[in-house]
Amino acid sequence: MYLEKINKVGDVKKIPAEHLGVLCDEIRDFLIEKISHTGGHLGSNLGVVELTVALHLELNLPKDDIIWDVGHQSYTHKLLSGRREGFDSLRMYHGMSGFPKRRESDCDCFDTGHSSTSISAGLGLVKARDISGEKKTVVSVIGDGSLTGGLAFEALNNAGKSDSNFIIILNDNKMSISENVGAIPKYLNSIRTSEGYLDLKDDVYNKIVGTPAGNNIVKNIRRAKNSFKSLYSPGMMFEEMGIVYLGPINGHDIDAMRKALKEAKRIKRAVMIHVITEKGKGYEPAIRHPARFHGTGPFDIETGLPKKSSAVSWTNVFSTVMVKLGARNPKICAVTAAMPDGTGLKRFYNAYPERFFDVGIAEEHAVTFAAGLAAGGLTPVVAIYSSFLQRAYDQIIHDVCLQDLPVVFAVDRAGIVGNDGETHQGIFDLSFLSGIPGMTVMAPKNLWEFSDMLKFAVSYGHPIAVRYPRGAVYEGLEEFRTDIAIGEAEWIYREEEIALVAVGSMVETAEKVRTGLEKKGHKASLINARFVSPIDTESIREAMRCHKLIVTLEENVRSGGFGERVLDFINSEKLAGKEPGADCLIISLPDCFIEHGDCALLKAANGIDADSITEKILERV
Amino acid sequence: MYLEKINKVGDVKKIPAEHLGVLCDEIRDFLIEKISHTGGHLGSNLGVVELTVALHLELNLPKDDIIWDVGHQSYTHKLLSGRREGFDSLRMYHGMSGFPKRRESDCDCFDTGHSSTSISAGLGLVKARDISGEKKTVVSVIGDGSLTGGLAFEALNNAGKSDSNFIIILNDNKMSISENVGAIPKYLNSIRTSEGYLDLKDDVYNKIVGTPAGNNIVKNIRRAKNSFKSLYSPGMMFEEMGIVYLGPINGHDIDAMRKALKEAKRIKRAVMIHVITEKGKGYEPAIRHPARFHGTGPFDIETGLPKKSSAVSWTNVFSTVMVKLGARNPKICAVTAAMPDGTGLKRFYNAYPERFFDVGIAEEHAVTFAAGLAAGGLTPVVAIYSSFLQRAYDQIIHDVCLQDLPVVFAVDRAGIVGNDGETHQGIFDLSFLSGIPGMTVMAPKNLWEFSDMLKFAVSYGHPIAVRYPRGAVYEGLEEFRTDIAIGEAEWIYREEEIALVAVGSMVETAEKVRTGLEKKGHKASLINARFVSPIDTESIREAMRCHKLIVTLEENVRSGGFGERVLDFINSEKLAGKEPGADCLIISLPDCFIEHGDCALLKAANGIDADSITEKILERV
Repeated sequence: MYLEKINKVGDVKKIPAEHLGVLCDEIRDFLIEKISHTGGHLGSNLGVVELTVALHLELNLPKDDIIWDVGHQSYTHKLLSGRREGFDSLRMYHGMSGFPKRRESDCDCFDTGHSSTSISAGLGLVKARDISGEKKTVVSVIGDGSLTGGLAFEALNNAGKSDSNFIIILNDNKMSISENVGAIPKYLNSIRTSEGYLDLKDDVYNKIVGTPAGNNIVKNIRRAKNSFKSLYSPGMMFEEMGIVYLGPINGHDIDAMRKALKEAKRIKRAVMIHVITEKGKGYEPAIRHPARFHGTGPFDIETGLPKKSSAVSWTNVFSTVMVKLGARNPKICAVTAAMPDGTGLKRFYNAYPERFFDVGIAEEHAVTFAAGLAAGGLTPVVAIYSSFLQRAYDQIIHDVCLQDLPVVFAVDRAGIVGNDGETHQGIFDLSFLSGIPGMTVMAPKNLWEFSDMLKFAVSYGHPIAVRYPRGAVYEGLEEFRTDIAIGEAEWIYREEEIALVAVGSMVETAEKVRTGLEKKGHKASLINARFVSPIDTESIREAMRCHKLIVTLEENVRSGGFGERVLDFINSEKLAGKEPGADCLIISLPDCFIEHGDCALLKAANGIDADSITEKILERV
Repeated sequence: MYLEKINKVGDVKKIPAEHLGVLCDEIRDFLIEKISHTGGHLGSNLGVVELTVALHLELNLPKDDIIWDVGHQSYTHKLLSGRREGFDSLRMYHGMSGFPKRRESDCDCFDTGHSSTSISAGLGLVKARDISGEKKTVVSVIGDGSLTGGLAFEALNNAGKSDSNFIIILNDNKMSISENVGAIPKYLNSIRTSEGYLDLKDDVYNKIVGTPAGNNIVKNIRRAKNSFKSLYSPGMMFEEMGIVYLGPINGHDIDAMRKALKEAKRIKRAVMIHVITEKGKGYEPAIRHPARFHGTGPFDIETGLPKKSSAVSWTNVFSTVMVKLGARNPKICAVTAAMPDGTGLKRFYNAYPERFFDVGIAEEHAVTFAAGLAAGGLTPVVAIYSSFLQRAYDQIIHDVCLQDLPVVFAVDRAGIVGNDGETHQGIFDLSFLSGIPGMTVMAPKNLWEFSDMLKFAVSYGHPIAVRYPRGAVYEGLEEFRTDIAIGEAEWIYREEEIALVAVGSMVETAEKVRTGLEKKGHKASLINARFVSPIDTESIREAMRCHKLIVTLEENVRSGGFGERVLDFINSEKLAGKEPGADCLIISLPDCFIEHGDCALLKAANGIDADSITEKILERV
């Protein structure tokens, strides 16, 4: 029962070394038990138990800094820094976050959530330390998957010239969420598989150096490349970048890692410790199904099966439709950034492997690469979660829209995503996408419309995005299925007093609002916006003519969103002396970050649930 | 007179090989002569004359594809593809662009402007070619500076697994715009300086292989790494990534490059030809002052001096103020992404080299690194041009604003930048920055206010951006210099009928508008907004009380900009039954990309010059 003794940071140092193995077992049991109830990231956390223990033993927290890349693997770190109780409310509204948060603990020095940031941030902390004359150790822990992100490379390029200590731990579990992609992972694999390596090095060295000719050779090589060592070092590529490489080291051997950390702390440069871990270690189902247990809902520990069978999701629909579209049109191809499972594109891959591209965690490249595919005559569909698509903002502007290339963006996880919290909420895409000239932005109200919009998108011939939420697809309003036409909204119910103009997921909410208003004696039209850019000016004009109040509804921040676009149009019409009729009320998320928690709770807390909206409207009529 | 014979693509193939040197001389003379009149990118273009000739000789344009990274080095390509006449209108309004444009020629297969996109785009064209069953050669030409961008690395990581031909030309001139930064350039340098390399290789090989022990060693090494070749290849690092490396090759030797291209075309993988060129070759002043001749205005060919001495620019002011701020506060540091000259930070570097960070062409890293500096207790000022800051949109959201870190963004070249055209216009920053929760966005009206805002920003303690234009700083309205206070606008003239609420550069324009309106008998207040986020709601309320019409003015697209924010507030006030007074007219750039040309012309063409605005207002009053 060692875990019980850990109530604050540093307590782990009191555990006798010979019992650390038991502690690690307890931590694993604890995490499996807790996450089976709350859901959360499991596989990555089970993989870094020993690594985290080693770090907490060799570092002085909170003085020293650990930056956890992505941050979903920080659960053991949270446990060891006195947050055991937090696991009962893990990822719940007002509960403990599933990611490092500076405001949660002084042991969290830098918030993460998106991939590949840790080396940049760590290098910043290193330079700040040196300029301020502080003494502390800075450690960035980055996975092999995150290493395929360009940001990590940019940081390595800068870390390589550091003349003071900076420890980078490469946590290599041969996985991002799904399998890794590209040359770097292949390179890491070549390191891993050359176990006879150290022996060979000594062997060769001894044989060469033993002879006069050999000595001369060694001298020549050294002079030319200053790298007899690097010629034989498994981390040659990192060494070429100016980073001292240590490893590979067994990431489940606490002693070996402590030794490496001690050695690394002495080096006055950036040093990479390459640690090999097993994702899901200690829990068979997590090892067998790494993608499913990357982020999981509540599950049955015995069987590893989810506690609730999940409903058909928007992602499922996307997955199915893409396979159909791929069959009909050989020019359609699919691009994902390390999310073949998450985006549902795996089925497209299975059907048309030659037209499927998983580019690794590299959203920028995904978009510019897709622009290249489109310039070459194909119709790429790029599926990226809303909050990660932020990474490719410039590529969408510069490489896609400026050239008016027919790239289709499938923007999954748009709107409130729930338990992953503020780093993952997809609440900016309507603003940043619809502000780009030449970009068409759509959002479907239900399953069938989503399918129709995807079909429309792949035949449109210009940049176009379809944004859709996380979770269960809406199957209501099946009877309303008029054809999709560019920039045209769909009138669902036609009344006279109030016009509800709803975007995507908010159509379902608007239906409830309409019922609520009716109960209070107010009639409301319901217009399904379908297009956020261009907006349907004809429908807005029509709405202005026949209604006193136009209410826009969207699951996006207010700034730059659908409401402001509609309001701008209404205002322009009024200024021009046309349609002086209606007032305009904007319903949106507020302009702030939105924490983690249950989606319904978050919607209510942020004023976009049916009750809050109905109330707001009743204040105005 | 060979250049005269080149009137369309392919004509260069008719020039006898022995006269190609003369052609190259003529091209250089032509470029120097033309650019001395029009201004443009000189150094990079003089460097790639022979490379471009070699490419046009070995490829079949327009069937084959060349993607020019950044694209400012495409002048010789434009000449050889029949666009000689275009140079008289180079970068002028409605004239030839200084960058590749698909709409300009079918020899331009992909538009560029921002850095590091060419390998991603090229790989897309390669995959499209293979899927479509076409036969053509795809060549991406990327500079060593662009290679420090993470996007290029993401692309290399994917290119390394290509199983069909893709040629990447690394045009290595040891420069981005200023000197290169980081481990990769250092690595390239190590390749360049090891000229005795091939000899050594043979020497060592012979000596080792000559003996039985040696043979054994070689066999062992081969088995372990399958890379006796790569151990000795200067491009080892690229080979480790799965990319075949050829070079380094003299980039001014047409024959050598043709040979390499012929060889490269035979390889069924991604192959990198490393070509060493001299930036500015053939024109001494451009060699001596690479930064100045990277992009230049008209200059005197004899002396290399600019034809007009330039006025004090916004950048100059930033440069001076930063040096002062750095002296007063040892926590202030400066970050640039390969633009020490362009941003004016070189003087800060000279004064405080240990607090200056040039991270290379790596805007994403620049921002996350700055977040790390701020988390470590410093006050970083990140100076990035508006259109390049688009690259770091997610990092600003995720790494800076989510943690409320005190990073100062100096957003240079905001608004219309002129001759570089649509890829470089800084017309989205007000929208994408002010839509981020927790980000404060300011814009100064003149020299003194700019200085005051920078001082305010470094002491503010939260994320904050100051955006300012390209070109000469405004020195009017010196007498108006009230203290900067968060979210407070400045009333310059107080009248009653019309309220002009102007952002930054538009204050100068609004003054002229005010005069124009006065001539027509209309009085206008002039409010200097100062803050775009948060907007000064008190001042807007006050303006609503005393004016019939509120006019917002900004040099930014309409969508998500200042005007829509103000309109949203005015509308909310009206809805709430408060201040029913004024109408609101939004003056902004239209929601479209803006081509190249003189800034004044572009402003007039897009309706944000004083005359157009005055006219629009007069229609409403």
